[in-house]
Amino acid sequence: MTTRLSQLFVRTLREDPSDAEVASHRLLVRAGYIRRQAPGVFSWLPLGLKVRRKVEQVVREEMDAIGGQEVLFPALLPREPYELTGRWTEYGDGIFRLKDRKEADYLLAPTHEEVFTLMVKDLYSSYKDLPLIAYQIQDKYRDEARPRAGLLRGREFSMKDSYSFDYTDAGLEASYQKHRDAYERIFQRLGLDYVIVKADAGAMGGSRSEEFLHPTLIGEDTFVRSAGGYAANVEAYRTTVPDALPIEGLPPAVVHDSPNTPTIATLVDLANNAVPREDRPWTAADTLKNVVLALGHLDGTRELVVVGLPGDREVDLKRVEVAFAPAEVEAATEADFAKHPGLVKGYIGPWSASGPVLGAPEDGPASSTGIRFFVDPRVVDGTQWVTGANEHEKHVFGLVAGRDFTADGVIEAAEVRAGDPAPDGSGPVELARGMEIGHVFQLGRKYAEALGLKVLDENGKLVTVTMGSYGIGVTRILAVIAEANNDEKGLVWPREVSPFDVHVIAATKEPEVYTAADALVAELETQGIDVLYDDRLKVSPGVKFGDAELIGVPVIVIVGKGVADGNVELWDRRTGERTSVPVTAIGALLVAELG
Amino acid sequence: MTTRLSQLFVRTLREDPSDAEVASHRLLVRAGYIRRQAPGVFSWLPLGLKVRRKVEQVVREEMDAIGGQEVLFPALLPREPYELTGRWTEYGDGIFRLKDRKEADYLLAPTHEEVFTLMVKDLYSSYKDLPLIAYQIQDKYRDEARPRAGLLRGREFSMKDSYSFDYTDAGLEASYQKHRDAYERIFQRLGLDYVIVKADAGAMGGSRSEEFLHPTLIGEDTFVRSAGGYAANVEAYRTTVPDALPIEGLPPAVVHDSPNTPTIATLVDLANNAVPREDRPWTAADTLKNVVLALGHLDGTRELVVVGLPGDREVDLKRVEVAFAPAEVEAATEADFAKHPGLVKGYIGPWSASGPVLGAPEDGPASSTGIRFFVDPRVVDGTQWVTGANEHEKHVFGLVAGRDFTADGVIEAAEVRAGDPAPDGSGPVELARGMEIGHVFQLGRKYAEALGLKVLDENGKLVTVTMGSYGIGVTRILAVIAEANNDEKGLVWPREVSPFDVHVIAATKEPEVYTAADALVAELETQGIDVLYDDRLKVSPGVKFGDAELIGVPVIVIVGKGVADGNVELWDRRTGERTSVPVTAIGALLVAELG
Repeated sequence: MTTRLSQLFVRTLREDPSDAEVASHRLLVRAGYIRRQAPGVFSWLPLGLKVRRKVEQVVREEMDAIGGQEVLFPALLPREPYELTGRWTEYGDGIFRLKDRKEADYLLAPTHEEVFTLMVKDLYSSYKDLPLIAYQIQDKYRDEARPRAGLLRGREFSMKDSYSFDYTDAGLEASYQKHRDAYERIFQRLGLDYVIVKADAGAMGGSRSEEFLHPTLIGEDTFVRSAGGYAANVEAYRTTVPDALPIEGLPPAVVHDSPNTPTIATLVDLANNAVPREDRPWTAADTLKNVVLALGHLDGTRELVVVGLPGDREVDLKRVEVAFAPAEVEAATEADFAKHPGLVKGYIGPWSASGPVLGAPEDGPASSTGIRFFVDPRVVDGTQWVTGANEHEKHVFGLVAGRDFTADGVIEAAEVRAGDPAPDGSGPVELARGMEIGHVFQLGRKYAEALGLKVLDENGKLVTVTMGSYGIGVTRILAVIAEANNDEKGLVWPREVSPFDVHVIAATKEPEVYTAADALVAELETQGIDVLYDDRLKVSPGVKFGDAELIGVPVIVIVGKGVADGNVELWDRRTGERTSVPVTAIGALLVAELG
Repeated sequence: MTTRLSQLFVRTLREDPSDAEVASHRLLVRAGYIRRQAPGVFSWLPLGLKVRRKVEQVVREEMDAIGGQEVLFPALLPREPYELTGRWTEYGDGIFRLKDRKEADYLLAPTHEEVFTLMVKDLYSSYKDLPLIAYQIQDKYRDEARPRAGLLRGREFSMKDSYSFDYTDAGLEASYQKHRDAYERIFQRLGLDYVIVKADAGAMGGSRSEEFLHPTLIGEDTFVRSAGGYAANVEAYRTTVPDALPIEGLPPAVVHDSPNTPTIATLVDLANNAVPREDRPWTAADTLKNVVLALGHLDGTRELVVVGLPGDREVDLKRVEVAFAPAEVEAATEADFAKHPGLVKGYIGPWSASGPVLGAPEDGPASSTGIRFFVDPRVVDGTQWVTGANEHEKHVFGLVAGRDFTADGVIEAAEVRAGDPAPDGSGPVELARGMEIGHVFQLGRKYAEALGLKVLDENGKLVTVTMGSYGIGVTRILAVIAEANNDEKGLVWPREVSPFDVHVIAATKEPEVYTAADALVAELETQGIDVLYDDRLKVSPGVKFGDAELIGVPVIVIVGKGVADGNVELWDRRTGERTSVPVTAIGALLVAELG
């Protein structure tokens, strides 16, 4: 196949689009691969569609190789199945909902666990039918709050989602491992760096879950990894819990006046000035910071909670959200404090279930308002803290966890920092940013139970099926490839997904140049090589070269005046290297390399 | 590629699904190709998806062959472009609308004229860039009032829509003709009968328009055709207008009492009894029937109109709707009559702009209510009619069009009947039913004008682009193929779209049968033949044969006990013929036929 640039539905732009934040978005628009139709919604021009189909094909081949069976489910789905699993509500504003002319509720599906489960229930009834891996490459919808970065976070996007069905845990483990291996092969074929990190399953439920992250500075996910091989996204990182300390013999807590001390920094100063330690100065890590958070529950109610964590750590809202999922979490507002005068801002301390440990403001203890108190895992029994006394301008010193206060629960609320220990003992972690390009989940029996998917086992007993769910964002991957393969001049596609095998440029207007270029293109076409042929007559060589660099086909052949001497130039887009090759040899050379 | 039936995600059903009205729906569900998810919304199982991809590929190849460039536009689109052309409103309840989290309006696109137009405006600016044919194979959405007949009328369906862009009328004509030819090739390759009929462009605007109808009794469209080659859908059929007759010398109209004569039949009886003609009896064709219709306008208003047509014809609401598009049309209700006592039900007659010709009921003439009066094209000047006198139990005889009354307009409201003359003089028409499988439109400059798509022509002058719009329903075609290719036992696919090239059945449990079948399948696979292999061990031959008939791969090979004598059976699914073939020859024979 040969595509003539003079005919191709494309226009390259010299200027960056004003709304493009990242290189992939900028270059895919400039080189004429995609155009934005609405926030997070894109049209695919011929160049873009060709690359997209190639990415899809790589994914399809690897899914087929693990026995995946391709199906295609609708994007438009009725509410009922999602109601049965609770996801209709859990998704909150994150999905598109609509009504048909009969006022029936529908959604544009973000993923398809429910309907795949119901389909298997419809079709299968015996353990002999399992295992099953079914997948689709399909357009999905999410009403992202901040669609950004072009294809990296779209609202309409193509995804390969697959679902495995087994009747034993070992079977699920095997299906999961097949997917994990297939994903590794996919990313290797696409030339994409990836890190497999432990993930928190979050709203999807289930047990084992890992993410494939492509390390990149523009990634939206932060992950941690140790030299010893540990890797997890920060939501899944688990704090190493220190041993409890003996409580017996610890001195009683003492309340001190602390005028104008509403922050940790001022508290540390006050402590070092007013209550200096003998062994070393007080540090923020000696203080217990009590942060008030507001949970937005699915039923619309708002609940305040207090979280106590070492004063040298900030709260990481993403980690807190995992702990309180599916509730949404934000910092308490002035209005929240105004409603609860028991929460003395700047001087909040812990309290026990029966009331605050210290301080009992006139309007009663905060706990009487039903506010729950959680602590960081580091706040083990026997640890001593400098913290608020629940009274304006008063702090308490030597408050002992497990003696003076007990929390309603332990949560991972604190930020993870470089140097924190990997939970598997493999050493300190470093932090990095990544973009999620794949995700493998062991859903377990959650969906099968909710939707009644059971099969008869070898003994004729009905058993609930156990499932996995696995996703790769096709359009996102395409953007990540573009992000990882470009330079200041444009895109540089890996061969596996390049829109064309070779880009032939007729560089000058001489008839013999066109004669030679036409002949080369015809020869390549008969060999099954997919050629983009820049045959534009009235376009200068400079513009043609610039377009070639922008479009990014990795192998370029320049047919120019040198044909008079029997030579053309082979141009490696990635290295920039140009090599003179006899025109009589170039066809065979390209066929050998690309055919 | 070989697919083992023991592994395939499929279940065949012995019973028809209860909601299936037509053969294609019944069989596609029973044979495990599709499953219904919601009214007009289907999931595609592996067998169905394979056929769908093959239909798509035929369409794609023929679109590529006319220089079409494949793109892919979003299903989710913002309101604005559709607002600019008026279609946001015109579609009424027929499309799915939704809001995003910011309350912005979106729709699920039913077709993409607007955004293709805007894309060309974005990319192109010169006549040198044209002509352009861009197409996509994409999922579309329509909120059908009565989704029915499985894939034949879905709410989520796959369509190939293409758009042509030219800057001259001759260019549009050429692009139109290319599509028309490509569509013929597509339907020929798919083995589908079709008739190309003149169509009314309706809400799409534009000038020339033709539909490809597949003649079938379950078709939703009625079309007419003459032996002389005329073909049109009934909406586009134009009545041959008779010559006007001389008015001079005609006797004056006479009002007669007509007690209890509210229908055309009673009126003809009364006429023959009370006012007999000398030359022949009165017939219904001598009467003018005045029908009250209610138009539902897009702005929500309801308008009553009266339509006068020969009493032997019924009103065809589909034809009236074209005349009044985009308004919706229905018969007036009792409530409508109650609001307008000037309309004397059963005795309505025509009236002139200044009032009713005859009768002036106490509450004033109907025309004073603003009700417009339209007539059938046969009501030419000089024709004489027996009709209502706009007064209870009174009719008028010898009322002359053009003398006694004049209409506000002429419309094609009457049904078309077999024997009516083709408008091109090619003889009487016959009526038939068909299913629309393709549609080609000359949109002209309507969309380009609304959206400002202009290019510079050879003289540097800005000219408005002229467009065409062309659609083929991919999933509908698949259903029509199934509809046209089945028998009481199941589906019978044409080779071009069969999910597999050959269906090999290991009919009995003997090891030598499996050995022979395995060897045959392996041989075919190495030859690139796509095989469905029924390798199920514990399934009886009868069930395997039944499944093969239901699934409908046209070429079936039965490997059974005959292998002991060195023979297998070649089974032609369409004819039912079974031929014994030496096992040593079957591979080569199939490769020769299918490879």
